Amino acid sequence: MRIVQIPTGAPYQVRIGEGLLSLLGEETERVHRPCRAVVITESNVAPLYLDRALDSLRQAGFEAEGFVFPAGEEHKTVDTYIAIQRRLVQLGLTREDLLVALGGGVTGDMTGFAAATYQRGIPFVQVPTTLLCAVDASVGGKTAIDLPEGKNMVGAFHQPILVLCDPDTFRTLPDQRWQDGAAEMLKHGVIADGDLFGRLKEGRWREDAAELVERNVAIKRSFVVGDEKDRGKRQLLNFGHTIGHAVEALSHFSLSHGQAVAIGMIAETRAARRMGWTELNEEILLEAAEKNGLPTRTEFTPGQVLEIALRDKKRRSDTLGVVVPLGLGAARLEQVPVNLLPEYLEKGLIL
Amino acid sequence: MRIVQIPTGAPYQVRIGEGLLSLLGEETERVHRPCRAVVITESNVAPLYLDRALDSLRQAGFEAEGFVFPAGEEHKTVDTYIAIQRRLVQLGLTREDLLVALGGGVTGDMTGFAAATYQRGIPFVQVPTTLLCAVDASVGGKTAIDLPEGKNMVGAFHQPILVLCDPDTFRTLPDQRWQDGAAEMLKHGVIADGDLFGRLKEGRWREDAAELVERNVAIKRSFVVGDEKDRGKRQLLNFGHTIGHAVEALSHFSLSHGQAVAIGMIAETRAARRMGWTELNEEILLEAAEKNGLPTRTEFTPGQVLEIALRDKKRRSDTLGVVVPLGLGAARLEQVPVNLLPEYLEKGLIL
Repeated sequence: MRIVQIPTGAPYQVRIGEGLLSLLGEETERVHRPCRAVVITESNVAPLYLDRALDSLRQAGFEAEGFVFPAGEEHKTVDTYIAIQRRLVQLGLTREDLLVALGGGVTGDMTGFAAATYQRGIPFVQVPTTLLCAVDASVGGKTAIDLPEGKNMVGAFHQPILVLCDPDTFRTLPDQRWQDGAAEMLKHGVIADGDLFGRLKEGRWREDAAELVERNVAIKRSFVVGDEKDRGKRQLLNFGHTIGHAVEALSHFSLSHGQAVAIGMIAETRAARRMGWTELNEEILLEAAEKNGLPTRTEFTPGQVLEIALRDKKRRSDTLGVVVPLGLGAARLEQVPVNLLPEYLEKGLIL
Repeated sequence: MRIVQIPTGAPYQVRIGEGLLSLLGEETERVHRPCRAVVITESNVAPLYLDRALDSLRQAGFEAEGFVFPAGEEHKTVDTYIAIQRRLVQLGLTREDLLVALGGGVTGDMTGFAAATYQRGIPFVQVPTTLLCAVDASVGGKTAIDLPEGKNMVGAFHQPILVLCDPDTFRTLPDQRWQDGAAEMLKHGVIADGDLFGRLKEGRWREDAAELVERNVAIKRSFVVGDEKDRGKRQLLNFGHTIGHAVEALSHFSLSHGQAVAIGMIAETRAARRMGWTELNEEILLEAAEKNGLPTRTEFTPGQVLEIALRDKKRRSDTLGVVVPLGLGAARLEQVPVNLLPEYLEKGLIL
């Protein structure tokens, strides 16, 4: 088993290893006395892994129940969130009980927000079943749901008490979900670890998933620790996300998060190069994206992207912070005045 | 002006004084640079005070807008909360902007929760326009909305950056809203300050509202500081609230919060006395409640109250913490096993 310590305000561990899902109960018991536990998951994951999770929890003495919602980002809504909350009240869940998020980013974000706000906060355990969630959403404590007006507009910071990652659960993922994970790992490579980028760029790395999760969690930790509320260096993790979030929303989520981030990283690098802020050429990202099955461009216009970007949570009153990659393994934040954003976006999106 | 310092994780001040509402802008500017500010208020308060609040903010350089929702606890719902959130996105509010809660407990709880979760947290200023909100909800950082299944079931801990209390705004309150404030002040008297109880028990104290707000805020502070997350001594503030919350819910909010708490304090004292846990006689509370225009009994049955009490947020898996008044000015917490609750409630509610 691989273990990464996350020394946030309330410290916890990310524990990574094949077969860990079947040990969910005893691993959870190491950090929380047996209680009622509600496992929140979605309709794709439930038939594959819910029974195994519930069985393991019950064997360790937890009174476990499942709650299944329809799969997909389009269900990361207020309605699903409130359905969860009402179910928890009906079950009589107290602040000393527990939620378990079993699934990908949507499940983790929404379960985390439910845990953050049910009776003003109860503990939760996260079991990421996608590579993307394992390397990204399982560290950092960001939880959220979407509004019709935008992604992740409502949320909270709430750390899990344990993250348990079983890479065996990745094996049932379709190619596109692997590619989503690749996009976030490539991002970590560009902003923090040139060797990692080199290892990923040919697209042949699936057998090393456990090790890559460990390495990427450690990178993400290095940005998150000391900046839990996302005010400083953590913002470098938004590389590719300013344009990425916008094209993801514009596509009405027909682009996945990873696909959108890949497009965003390439466009933001191109923009930064043409603005004269970096010498890194986006071609190297473009090749790595292609070899990892990721898209490299979008038909959405700078004007369309601008409209969404102006609602970005990272926006201050007069500027928007964008990430400038300085090479492979280093980056910095640039505060772009709002009136310069149209030029930045045109330089990034017009080939 | 009277000032109470609240030394929570992020410290802030409660500033109390006649006429302060007209100084909202300059007082806010002392703690936050001018930005966009959305003043959340309800349909009873808006015609009285919203324009004054907006004018003052604008004069101090804030770009201020109002958001008005229908008055009443029955609107402290997910629907209102989400309407607020969507409006904030539409206005393009960023994390560096500000909410202002202008109103009573419903407005404060809901605006606080909106601020706690909009883009994972933005600052807010609280302007209580009721005595109850001034002495209770404006200290402690508890924010919440109701679910159909129960009050305050979904929420967060989020401290305001400033509380500005203008007792002039109390003058437009109907008697019942004064009585609601009286109930919480009597509670503070019983659990922490016998002199305060003595001063309130004849029901003639309205002219001293500013001083009483200061004194009650200081009492509440003494319970909240060091226990922001409500795990220890802070629970003594729940005196009267175990039974009170239940009868309030059972009445479908035809009982106000203060009325319900008065009934709850008397019933919980009677129960504690009959259980042999205290020598305090509930008669003294009963007289003080009557002189302050508050009700003293309920027709709801112990069985009805039990069903609601079992969903209480203070409940642990096997016990429910109830407050035992030990005299006038002292109290302790008793963990009542769930199987003893029926007896406790019968002793409290059956005359």
